[in-house]
Amino acid sequence: MPYQPPVRDHVFLLRDVLRLESYANLPHFADASIDVVEQIVEEAGRFTGEVLAPLNAVGDKQGCVWNPDHTVKTPPGFKEAYAQLVEGGWPALGAEPAYGGQGLPHVVNLAFSEMSSSANMAFSMYPGLTHGAYSAILNGGSQAQKDLYLPKLASGQWCGTMNLTEPHCGTDLGLLRTKAVPQADGSYRITGGKIWISGGEHDMAENIVHLVLARIEGAPEGVRGISLFIVPKFIPDADGKPGERNSVYCDGLEEKMGIHGNATCVIRHEGSQGWLVGEENQGLKLMFVMMNEARIGVGLQGISQAEAAYQAAAEFAKERLQGRSLTGPKNPDGPADPIIVHPDVRRMLMDSRALIEGGRAFLFWTALQGDLAHAHPDEAVRQKAADYMALMTPVVKGFLTDRGLKVCSDAVQVHGGSGFTEHFPVSQYMRDVRIALIYEGTNGVQALDLVGRKLAAQGGRAVMTFFAEIDAFVEANQGEPALKPFTDALALAKAQLQEATLWLMQHGLANPDNAGAASTDYLQLFGYTALAYMWAQIAVAAQAKIAAGETDPFYGNKLTIGRYYMDRVLPEAGAHLAKLKTGSELMMALPAEAF
Amino acid sequence: MPYQPPVRDHVFLLRDVLRLESYANLPHFADASIDVVEQIVEEAGRFTGEVLAPLNAVGDKQGCVWNPDHTVKTPPGFKEAYAQLVEGGWPALGAEPAYGGQGLPHVVNLAFSEMSSSANMAFSMYPGLTHGAYSAILNGGSQAQKDLYLPKLASGQWCGTMNLTEPHCGTDLGLLRTKAVPQADGSYRITGGKIWISGGEHDMAENIVHLVLARIEGAPEGVRGISLFIVPKFIPDADGKPGERNSVYCDGLEEKMGIHGNATCVIRHEGSQGWLVGEENQGLKLMFVMMNEARIGVGLQGISQAEAAYQAAAEFAKERLQGRSLTGPKNPDGPADPIIVHPDVRRMLMDSRALIEGGRAFLFWTALQGDLAHAHPDEAVRQKAADYMALMTPVVKGFLTDRGLKVCSDAVQVHGGSGFTEHFPVSQYMRDVRIALIYEGTNGVQALDLVGRKLAAQGGRAVMTFFAEIDAFVEANQGEPALKPFTDALALAKAQLQEATLWLMQHGLANPDNAGAASTDYLQLFGYTALAYMWAQIAVAAQAKIAAGETDPFYGNKLTIGRYYMDRVLPEAGAHLAKLKTGSELMMALPAEAF
Repeated sequence: MPYQPPVRDHVFLLRDVLRLESYANLPHFADASIDVVEQIVEEAGRFTGEVLAPLNAVGDKQGCVWNPDHTVKTPPGFKEAYAQLVEGGWPALGAEPAYGGQGLPHVVNLAFSEMSSSANMAFSMYPGLTHGAYSAILNGGSQAQKDLYLPKLASGQWCGTMNLTEPHCGTDLGLLRTKAVPQADGSYRITGGKIWISGGEHDMAENIVHLVLARIEGAPEGVRGISLFIVPKFIPDADGKPGERNSVYCDGLEEKMGIHGNATCVIRHEGSQGWLVGEENQGLKLMFVMMNEARIGVGLQGISQAEAAYQAAAEFAKERLQGRSLTGPKNPDGPADPIIVHPDVRRMLMDSRALIEGGRAFLFWTALQGDLAHAHPDEAVRQKAADYMALMTPVVKGFLTDRGLKVCSDAVQVHGGSGFTEHFPVSQYMRDVRIALIYEGTNGVQALDLVGRKLAAQGGRAVMTFFAEIDAFVEANQGEPALKPFTDALALAKAQLQEATLWLMQHGLANPDNAGAASTDYLQLFGYTALAYMWAQIAVAAQAKIAAGETDPFYGNKLTIGRYYMDRVLPEAGAHLAKLKTGSELMMALPAEAF
Repeated sequence: MPYQPPVRDHVFLLRDVLRLESYANLPHFADASIDVVEQIVEEAGRFTGEVLAPLNAVGDKQGCVWNPDHTVKTPPGFKEAYAQLVEGGWPALGAEPAYGGQGLPHVVNLAFSEMSSSANMAFSMYPGLTHGAYSAILNGGSQAQKDLYLPKLASGQWCGTMNLTEPHCGTDLGLLRTKAVPQADGSYRITGGKIWISGGEHDMAENIVHLVLARIEGAPEGVRGISLFIVPKFIPDADGKPGERNSVYCDGLEEKMGIHGNATCVIRHEGSQGWLVGEENQGLKLMFVMMNEARIGVGLQGISQAEAAYQAAAEFAKERLQGRSLTGPKNPDGPADPIIVHPDVRRMLMDSRALIEGGRAFLFWTALQGDLAHAHPDEAVRQKAADYMALMTPVVKGFLTDRGLKVCSDAVQVHGGSGFTEHFPVSQYMRDVRIALIYEGTNGVQALDLVGRKLAAQGGRAVMTFFAEIDAFVEANQGEPALKPFTDALALAKAQLQEATLWLMQHGLANPDNAGAASTDYLQLFGYTALAYMWAQIAVAAQAKIAAGETDPFYGNKLTIGRYYMDRVLPEAGAHLAKLKTGSELMMALPAEAF
């Protein structure tokens, strides 16, 4: 059985946990009644399950093919599926109506994105990056640029890319060398080599719009001298139709551990014609608009691969007969019991469920903050939501991708030897998800962003607000006996995170290496705490249903998985706190040559 | 720079930590003076580094090729390297002199095995399985079988395999269907299909000796009716030369995530001629001789890939220039600092060192128990060593492979985007090591073996002895200030393991699912504690050197890495204890259909 989109979980999350309808007064939410959302989620489930999922293994096994004429052929079926994607209006879901979009809240669009990525991560990166390019131009482009590019990007008729990395410069964009030379007509000629450009060349769209970081001749060194340019593969003519071929070429594809269906390109700009987006030397700021959006999208990839891998593992565990239950045969008429009877198999499946469902709630909750920050009429709400969005983005990216790899690796493990072969889908999920810990800023860079930038912003306002929100939640819900295990565990987790935060304030300033040494443990501790808060909210929603007489085991199961999270997953947080508090001394003690 | 065998670490471990010379009165050790061992280790380093390491990527990229005539071609260079291996006498290192072996202690042979596996895991599996076949025949074969097969297997002139798994039967060997029919000449005709047979067919040796589990016609059902057979690919003639081709065929190779250089074969026995090893229906017991040896070998694979991946990561971290140190430029004349200045990169490298060096000590210490159990003149020492060997084997296999995957994944992470490409070696290490968590009994099966079988054996004698040994060690060493951080941390770890053991005794009998639910956390807790004990012993050895006036930073660095282990790695143990004590209730609460 291929991937089955978890429609019911999405609807429960949007309707009962995040209570989307309580935001009906907001502009983008007005058209997103829960009925409409349900319909969209169900249709998204059908499209991704039926059209994209069957192409996932094809993409992995056949990969993309580069030709000496600089064209790239995507795997069989990708082009047709992409046409169906555009035809179905899926890329336009979250885009502005002014540019042909459907203007739905980001959080609703996310349900489609998750399903699409579960079904076929390599494929869904093409529209994912296109939406990033759309956002960058929406935020920084001139009106003429918006009018020219946004409708084509919103519909998916044209695709987009991010051209950042160069061989000597990844995280450290200040080292960037690609040059832009101003031309008499107001455009620029761009020269330089880029690597690891996802979807940098392919055969699925009539045009590809590269967003390129380059240094205008004479610009300051370092990050203060970087500008952002639009470099279309085919230069739009007066009618906005793809015209002359621009001198931007794909010189080859990267051989990779996974995501073989996505063309990871070496890109050469040989005096390609580009147009400045926004102001000179302000490129990095604009790129971060794309980057922050992309980071949420990468966190989503962690969840999406985990969900798909978990499904495969659960199915295998229910079908594979091997050994007998420790408490007596459960399938006495068969030659053996299904391996799901074994506690250690159950452990991996329950860990996965607890991480995926809590992680998905965290992802959607964070995306909702983005919507509120954008659209809420109350400035205090907007500010709080913007604070949360900034604070949580590195946690969503880092924590959810780390856990995504764990879940995928556990799914391989549940499969035993079968999981190591390429006859089952889990090897691909594990290989594909591995990149999510790396790109759009490695998880170490996320941790440093969290500790070095986000935490300290506005005197720690965001994290203090978060602590106060959790305190109020615990206060409000601890009286209900069914919720007590959740509020108790959450209160403890929050106290640990607070202790770590205090430690950072005390020791990070005295020696910045202490902050660096603590950063990953702090991010992990933050992630586990955030998921504890999410599970507590899920429990409130499920318990409300049960209290109202709902007998569907779906809700009772949520309470069980949530309590499992608190008992069996959350203890990790304490280990991170203990490590973090040991500081940087031993970590930094050895001279480099001792390694 | 390709893999560099860590010769100095091996010599330090064998000479100063395990104090090999203190066993000079034992038969196998008499010829293994520390000078001889040093010479062997250095030569092993040369051979594996120069001959095997350069073929690792070749094996991964080109893999093995199956031909319709049932032959398998190994990757370019493998055949020649194998000839050099045999020529150099390496397979004979740990074999009995009576059969052409060099009769060195297992612990010395292990140094070669680790280097060989680091250099080329897929390649080293061929001689690894050959040694397993050698051991099974040595333990269970008739004198005629020993005389016929052992010299050829000891020298590596012939290779060996283990034919266990069938499509419907992996862990649960009781389901085995392959049939053996007795023949008038005392041999058997064997019919059935086997899968996942590592090295099941190849072109490197003049003969392949399959050790095959099958069920003799009329034998009891389940594991009590399984026998072990020798099935040579070419039946030895009267002179012991490979003669008639036996009807055992390779019908194809498995597509896998990694170890592409090793032929993972689908094997068909079509009335192949086989000879019973030992008694009828006693096959499983003999197979476990191979299996237990193989499990130590798989734990070794975890360490070996971790070492190779760590080396690649350390090299990359010292060369890749990106960003500036948080405490000011460390390479002010360069465009950026090497990334090893960043604490979070350092964290991954230090974690790796702490796990590899502690893990290697645990591996070698356990192998030494095997040697003592075999050869020590004092029966009490033999018994204790045999107890330890049995108890530690699942921990060595499960814990060291889990940590091996972590270190390899961290090495990918240190490389950033480069790590996800196949231009750098770390993707292969991560893909190759993944199988080690699965084969020879998944790590979940190891955990169950530990908790369900090994722990309870002789009323818990082994683990009680281990606790007493640690207590005595702490008592003896806590007075030395430099060792206090080690003994304090070790005492705490041991107390946690003891608490977990008590919990298991109290709750595992009442409900076997509690033991199953606790098993993996218990194994992890055991592993972290064992490594704490190893690091404490390493510290004693290093501190003795320092106290004796040794100024080489090598020894001080060991103390630093050891204290890092206690501070920054060992806290994981507490999380496992907390999880374990929550029991099986929530883990087992959901019905299977809820997954």
